[in-house]
Amino acid sequence: MIRAAELIQRKRDGEELGAGELRELVLAYVRGDVPDYQMAAFCMAVYFRGLSPAETFALTEAMVASGRTIDLRGAVGRPVVDKHSTGGVGDKTSLAVGPIVAACGVPFGKMSGRGLGHTGGTLDKLESIPGFRIELSAEEFVAQVRDVGLAIIGQTADLVPADKLLYGLRDVTATVENVSLIASSIMSKKIASGADAIVLDVKVGDGAFMKTLDDARSLADAMLELGRLADRRVVCVLTDMDQPLGHAVGNALEILETRATLRGEGPDDFSELVLAASAHLLVLSDLGVDETEARRRAETSVQDGSALAAYERWVRAQGGDPAEDVLPAAPVVREVSAPQDGYVQTLGAIAVGTAALHLGAGRRTKEDTIDHAVGVRCLKKRGDAVAAGEAIAEIHARDENAAAQAADDVLAAYAFDKDPPFRRPVVLETIA
Amino acid sequence: MIRAAELIQRKRDGEELGAGELRELVLAYVRGDVPDYQMAAFCMAVYFRGLSPAETFALTEAMVASGRTIDLRGAVGRPVVDKHSTGGVGDKTSLAVGPIVAACGVPFGKMSGRGLGHTGGTLDKLESIPGFRIELSAEEFVAQVRDVGLAIIGQTADLVPADKLLYGLRDVTATVENVSLIASSIMSKKIASGADAIVLDVKVGDGAFMKTLDDARSLADAMLELGRLADRRVVCVLTDMDQPLGHAVGNALEILETRATLRGEGPDDFSELVLAASAHLLVLSDLGVDETEARRRAETSVQDGSALAAYERWVRAQGGDPAEDVLPAAPVVREVSAPQDGYVQTLGAIAVGTAALHLGAGRRTKEDTIDHAVGVRCLKKRGDAVAAGEAIAEIHARDENAAAQAADDVLAAYAFDKDPPFRRPVVLETIA
Repeated sequence: MIRAAELIQRKRDGEELGAGELRELVLAYVRGDVPDYQMAAFCMAVYFRGLSPAETFALTEAMVASGRTIDLRGAVGRPVVDKHSTGGVGDKTSLAVGPIVAACGVPFGKMSGRGLGHTGGTLDKLESIPGFRIELSAEEFVAQVRDVGLAIIGQTADLVPADKLLYGLRDVTATVENVSLIASSIMSKKIASGADAIVLDVKVGDGAFMKTLDDARSLADAMLELGRLADRRVVCVLTDMDQPLGHAVGNALEILETRATLRGEGPDDFSELVLAASAHLLVLSDLGVDETEARRRAETSVQDGSALAAYERWVRAQGGDPAEDVLPAAPVVREVSAPQDGYVQTLGAIAVGTAALHLGAGRRTKEDTIDHAVGVRCLKKRGDAVAAGEAIAEIHARDENAAAQAADDVLAAYAFDKDPPFRRPVVLETIA
Repeated sequence: MIRAAELIQRKRDGEELGAGELRELVLAYVRGDVPDYQMAAFCMAVYFRGLSPAETFALTEAMVASGRTIDLRGAVGRPVVDKHSTGGVGDKTSLAVGPIVAACGVPFGKMSGRGLGHTGGTLDKLESIPGFRIELSAEEFVAQVRDVGLAIIGQTADLVPADKLLYGLRDVTATVENVSLIASSIMSKKIASGADAIVLDVKVGDGAFMKTLDDARSLADAMLELGRLADRRVVCVLTDMDQPLGHAVGNALEILETRATLRGEGPDDFSELVLAASAHLLVLSDLGVDETEARRRAETSVQDGSALAAYERWVRAQGGDPAEDVLPAAPVVREVSAPQDGYVQTLGAIAVGTAALHLGAGRRTKEDTIDHAVGVRCLKKRGDAVAAGEAIAEIHARDENAAAQAADDVLAAYAFDKDPPFRRPVVLETIA
């Protein structure tokens, strides 16, 4: 019988708990022997006192041990790579990175959670493709990574059940914002789903969970340490989320943009992040290439069409139709015009995301259904020159009223000035 | 619909919450609309951030509003007094203060909680009196205070239900030790049960919840402020709990000591505290007497037998037999002898309390039953001179084995030295 109250008290008083104690706490919680109210008090104590690196790793290992783990390497016969993002507006990076890496001959296997958000998550974006199946069994997942070289599916329920419980609890008890708890939540799922090498994209800024570079660095450091202790090869990229990533914000629109990027016709910032993340994964893989060679191979896969071919092979393998003209399209498309000459100074990520949410592209509650066709395309972004009257954005809406409202909201997300702003790259820092 | 997660977050971030917000949180919790896990996270946030005086009062008022309140003054026709102790080893003070105050013509009405403890609480001590009924209805309580001038009963279930829920939750989530939460728990019950004037005995030391004078002062200040805001007349006495209070530790033994004290034959420290607390209540009452006159009247009631007569009237009113020889007596009484000549330096309250608990005088869990007959009498206390072989304590036990173990434990609770220790009064401070 675990003395949960005693563990809560010791954490509350700033003590470091033992690995065995944390493991027993988590496993007892999943068994139902430690009730939600004790776990909630524990999480709040952790919020104030933090967890040491050793405690964070013990928590992560306990979460992994709470469910099934997948031995991708054993099943595929070589190291498999994965990529995770802390989430942002217009973030479809995995959808392009997977095919590029696969085209370069490195197996890519990713399980993704669902979650709420301004726009759908990775799974929602994939579900805008007619026929695409995200609910594969673990066996189907492993087989597809082995046979097709690429699979992205919904996380199976038996993987890290502790995280599902704990995240749900933290969400309603104001205990989400702790670096150790966030890092263990992310890394437990990455470790359980079996990839050997992982690129972690930590978003920073207005539209991200981490608002400052310092916060993002702390999270990156915590995750790198967990990766090291769990014997995974990990690179963290800290990337800009002060404005949406790429142009497209909305599910089918982002699939279109993914395809364009795989043809070499994507937006600059998004293309850069995709190539950088892909190159990191190739370096971490068993190819034995350096950064320069990895980047060259990633770029080549886009130029020679092999990345797009890998995309189409993957989508078909999961039952989807990879063609562009089968994607749902919104009946109303409305342009937003620049009110003046000048340069885009800022383009608020949250504001654009909220406009997309109101159009129906995201979920406010778990029960909301997503309209895959709607969204926003931000044609002009920070640093772009605009002329008065020029189209700066496109609203894709279900009806005229929704379009008009979104057009107002998106225009309000822009700020202009006569002079161009300082340039800011999409990849702010890389930590390995 | 209350947004509990938002209130938790704002408290977590150090914000002061509004009175209406706290009231809604508490009432929603009692209704079951806010689950235990949110309240647990809230309490832990309060543990780290504290509550302002205004928040503490709002919480207290909300707890009072969660259940029934009793208008003792209206029913009795004049102000009624009450006394509360934060609890300690050998603390039977209310049992002697009530009769003295009643004998001086001031109505005394107290509701008492049950709780765990080394030795029983006030209710358990009263239940060692054959026939004594602690479960009176609120109507019987009010009628007895009016007609007999004195009633001490178990708290009725409809009084401050929020406290019962909240205390149970705090007990298992390591969120007991917060001055605002403790103060609101105590004062909400005092306010709801209707007395106009209250003496609060805050125990300090080894055997008390408050280990230091500073902690005790903080709690006293918080309770005085709540009394002021709730329009109650309150005096706090901070009293010594480094050693047991009086000689007797154990339920029937404490009833015997109460009777002896009401005859003027009680232990010095206990008699002093009883008279001091009684005098404070007389000053706070509607008698219009000053401290000197109040003390004189309290002492007189002991000398002229009126206090003992009030005790017997009260016990009979609640169905009990006030005689001494009807109290349960332990079959085994064993002396503990001084191992050397010298002075008692310290007598550990917790150690004596634990010995009494092992004898069966207290409860470890709610399900434990109490043996009213057993306990310890500490014949020698701090500062007393002893000769080697002289009896320093008496063990009252169910059997020889238990007596032998307790004798060892009680002897170990004593420390001796050649020189007398510094004198320390039982009443350390009085704050009004």
